[in-house]
Amino acid sequence: MPNRSCVIRLSRYKNALRRLKTLNFIRVYSDNLADSAGVTAAQVRKDFSMFGITGNRRGGYKVDELIEKLNTILGKDQLQEVVVVGVGNIGRALIHYSGFEKSGIKIVAGFDIDPDKHDNEASVPILTLGQLVDFLKENQIKLGIICVPDYAAQQVMELMLAAGVRGILNFAPICLKAPEGCFLSNINLETELENIIYFVNAEDKTRM
Amino acid sequence: MPNRSCVIRLSRYKNALRRLKTLNFIRVYSDNLADSAGVTAAQVRKDFSMFGITGNRRGGYKVDELIEKLNTILGKDQLQEVVVVGVGNIGRALIHYSGFEKSGIKIVAGFDIDPDKHDNEASVPILTLGQLVDFLKENQIKLGIICVPDYAAQQVMELMLAAGVRGILNFAPICLKAPEGCFLSNINLETELENIIYFVNAEDKTRM
Repeated sequence: MPNRSCVIRLSRYKNALRRLKTLNFIRVYSDNLADSAGVTAAQVRKDFSMFGITGNRRGGYKVDELIEKLNTILGKDQLQEVVVVGVGNIGRALIHYSGFEKSGIKIVAGFDIDPDKHDNEASVPILTLGQLVDFLKENQIKLGIICVPDYAAQQVMELMLAAGVRGILNFAPICLKAPEGCFLSNINLETELENIIYFVNAEDKTRM
Repeated sequence: MPNRSCVIRLSRYKNALRRLKTLNFIRVYSDNLADSAGVTAAQVRKDFSMFGITGNRRGGYKVDELIEKLNTILGKDQLQEVVVVGVGNIGRALIHYSGFEKSGIKIVAGFDIDPDKHDNEASVPILTLGQLVDFLKENQIKLGIICVPDYAAQQVMELMLAAGVRGILNFAPICLKAPEGCFLSNINLETELENIIYFVNAEDKTRM
């Protein structure tokens, strides 16, 4: 099976292709994709050959065909339904984030413990935490995003897993560990910023 | 200089320590930190020794001292001022995200091209894009977060760099390349989700 970095690169190629298509590109070369994804052309060809994608003799690919193939590989040929648990600032932003829809990702419901946030009538309904498990089972949802405070994240993950969720994106500022058979990514906004701050400051110190 | 992964682990240790402190822990062992950061105890000790942090003979550390040392290393002993460019869903959520403040990160202003969003009176003022460069220079801001659409991201980055910004967190769904001397992290929410979707689907196919 390809590794995580390889799949991330496929996403980047696909995003680059979508942009090139808006510029009326009909064919691209591995060099073009390499530039926009920040890798070498050899890497592009290696990634593609891993999935049986071959270009023509001069190394070119048809943009439309390539997008379609990448979409199929990335599971974008079918709509992916996702729930968001925790409708605070970040959760709410993700529910309304327009970038997902054009990627075939649909947020189908939000869940929150705060009754003031509940809204059955919204285009993306906000339900109670007590409704989470039944909703996930009834709709056979496999993907969830966690945006609750750190102390609640583990429990929310366990509820999700028990209800059949197998892929989780975690924004709670705590490093969750996924059990076998579940795929989990932790995005810690503070940690990301701290990392940048460290290197900016470290360089300042070197300059002094 | 330590690498990116090492600094990310230091952030994780610090977050874990902050939680342990709320549980009234006075001292911790490298095993405790290893568990909460998902690494080995040997890794914890190696990371600490790289920064001259040593425990007692039994491998224990005092929680308060350790937090203070990690904060100094991570530049958290001084307030870090950050601007957000692009006040859409994600930008607005970051401006109001409470997690930053307790980490010594302060969002000092937002910038947007849409006049309807401008608000000089808000606790975090939302200014025009035309005010960005002067604001950055006057306040000597070194850190910025980009939340604009993909087609505007490169231009916003160049404005920031020209005004002295040297650390950027990019949420625009395009992979920006940082010039030398600038530290940049790309967080692509779609790509993160696509990655999880790929592995969940790949496992489904294996099961069939």
